[in-house]
Amino acid sequence: MKGTARLPNAAQAVRRGDRRALARLITAVENGDRNAEPALRALYPFTGHAQIIGITGPLGVGKSSVINELIAHLRGLGRTVAVLAVDPSSPFSGGSVLGDRIRLDRAPEDSGVFIRSMASRGHAGGVAIATRASVRLLEAAGFDIVLVETVGSGQVDVEIRDVATTSVVVLVPHLGDEVQTLKAGLFEIADVFCVNKSDLPGAERAEKHLTDLAGTGRPRNGWTARIVATSTSPPCGIDRLWEAIAAHEAFLDAGGRRSEEERRRLAKEIAGRVRDRVGERILEDPALHGLVDRVIARTLDPETAARELYAERFPPR
Amino acid sequence: MKGTARLPNAAQAVRRGDRRALARLITAVENGDRNAEPALRALYPFTGHAQIIGITGPLGVGKSSVINELIAHLRGLGRTVAVLAVDPSSPFSGGSVLGDRIRLDRAPEDSGVFIRSMASRGHAGGVAIATRASVRLLEAAGFDIVLVETVGSGQVDVEIRDVATTSVVVLVPHLGDEVQTLKAGLFEIADVFCVNKSDLPGAERAEKHLTDLAGTGRPRNGWTARIVATSTSPPCGIDRLWEAIAAHEAFLDAGGRRSEEERRRLAKEIAGRVRDRVGERILEDPALHGLVDRVIARTLDPETAARELYAERFPPR
Repeated sequence: MKGTARLPNAAQAVRRGDRRALARLITAVENGDRNAEPALRALYPFTGHAQIIGITGPLGVGKSSVINELIAHLRGLGRTVAVLAVDPSSPFSGGSVLGDRIRLDRAPEDSGVFIRSMASRGHAGGVAIATRASVRLLEAAGFDIVLVETVGSGQVDVEIRDVATTSVVVLVPHLGDEVQTLKAGLFEIADVFCVNKSDLPGAERAEKHLTDLAGTGRPRNGWTARIVATSTSPPCGIDRLWEAIAAHEAFLDAGGRRSEEERRRLAKEIAGRVRDRVGERILEDPALHGLVDRVIARTLDPETAARELYAERFPPR
Repeated sequence: MKGTARLPNAAQAVRRGDRRALARLITAVENGDRNAEPALRALYPFTGHAQIIGITGPLGVGKSSVINELIAHLRGLGRTVAVLAVDPSSPFSGGSVLGDRIRLDRAPEDSGVFIRSMASRGHAGGVAIATRASVRLLEAAGFDIVLVETVGSGQVDVEIRDVATTSVVVLVPHLGDEVQTLKAGLFEIADVFCVNKSDLPGAERAEKHLTDLAGTGRPRNGWTARIVATSTSPPCGIDRLWEAIAAHEAFLDAGGRRSEEERRRLAKEIAGRVRDRVGERILEDPALHGLVDRVIARTLDPETAARELYAERFPPR
């Protein structure tokens, strides 16, 4: 393969399509293993071409089943697909606390599909960094589409819009008034709403409700969220779900939005990485511990303590 | 009330037991309104005496029902209770996407109970800061016990151990092998496991499984997680759940652990506040945008970009 001659071995293997090398690198990334860095750096130029689709929504709405059907649909279209399950309850990651496991019955020899879970380290920042790095590894491995499954309903550990080019929020028909409270948060996240389990009563009303909300709501950056009803047993609406996702991807390309969004995401990521390094340094700052003593004694409050430390260590340039 | 004469009006009102003033201050905190700061600062000396109990666990395990029963139990013991629902799906916050609302049938005139939800702002850091500040307001308002409800299963927006003195993880019997994957994360979080819906089949096995895991696992800081089976319709085991929580609270007091833990939490909080200020400053740094250009052109990778910016702006002292 062109241009891989000078790559580190692991990076070359990933570019050659070696799935075990890919899996090993993702594990290294998850473990925060710095030995993975040369490969990550070497593979970074091969990123930026995949469609990164975030699939998010609360536990029990059937995200994993939707993903399962999306994989089948996309393979039918000849696209290669990687799945990164950041949701610890996902059956893809062996979780599924509530027991609603799904059957993953794909041919194991299909090299056009790769499924991987992100182990939760109980540390949101670490997961976010590992998720971004893993998505890049999957891109560099040549997958056309990367589906990132996260749990979340407004509050998410991995802010899906900071990773994905298109964000799909999966919900179930049982909405009613509740959607009002979630509305702001969800419309901020979603490019596409997937009303799953649309065979359940209330699906049509839920779809109409969301459509009304989407219509009255301000479109975000010129895009009005699309609403698609799906069900997965038997599969129904998955083709329209993909059409809605593809329409958003085409929208990103048409108006120069894709590079704007990439710029926003990268600035936030790099700033976040610098911020985290600074954070580690502050934790080891001897001045911090003197301040904590005063805060424990209640002669100083935490916000004022932070302000003092910031002013002392990071004076205006 | 002693010592309130020189407090700002809002702070005085909170100390007098004015619930509307309390609610207004929490709203201000949620909105990031800086006008709340004098009151927060003035009330900080009145914090540190409450028991802050985190109740966490995935959607659908019945956290809110357990909380509902805990309130009744604690009121029976003569303790005052505030609930802060940080889980956007909590019925306390009007969420409950899956429709399993519970009936909150307390006497509305009982001033010994205060329930409040934390609106999700889709921004994890903001929620964490607002949660800590709100807990302090509830402490300063004189509540004996503050129950903080969060969603989460290993990954949590608000890292509950950074807020609560005792953390309860609520699960349901349907565990099986799945708990293995969650194990590490959950044992890191939980001081007490609550196996709720223990009327469902598998409850006894789940409890035994967790007990075995807790027994073989290393106790964290000298405390071995306790496991309690509960159900809520009809209520059962809630008294034992509270005993387990109270045992952990007593453990904290006995060995000087409470102040050690408080020191750890405050150091992390103050460092986090300083880090976030630095993060905002980095986002506005002109040098960042030059680096982003190179990262978009794929001539530089994000990690190296961050390292360069860190070295330039934050050289070793």
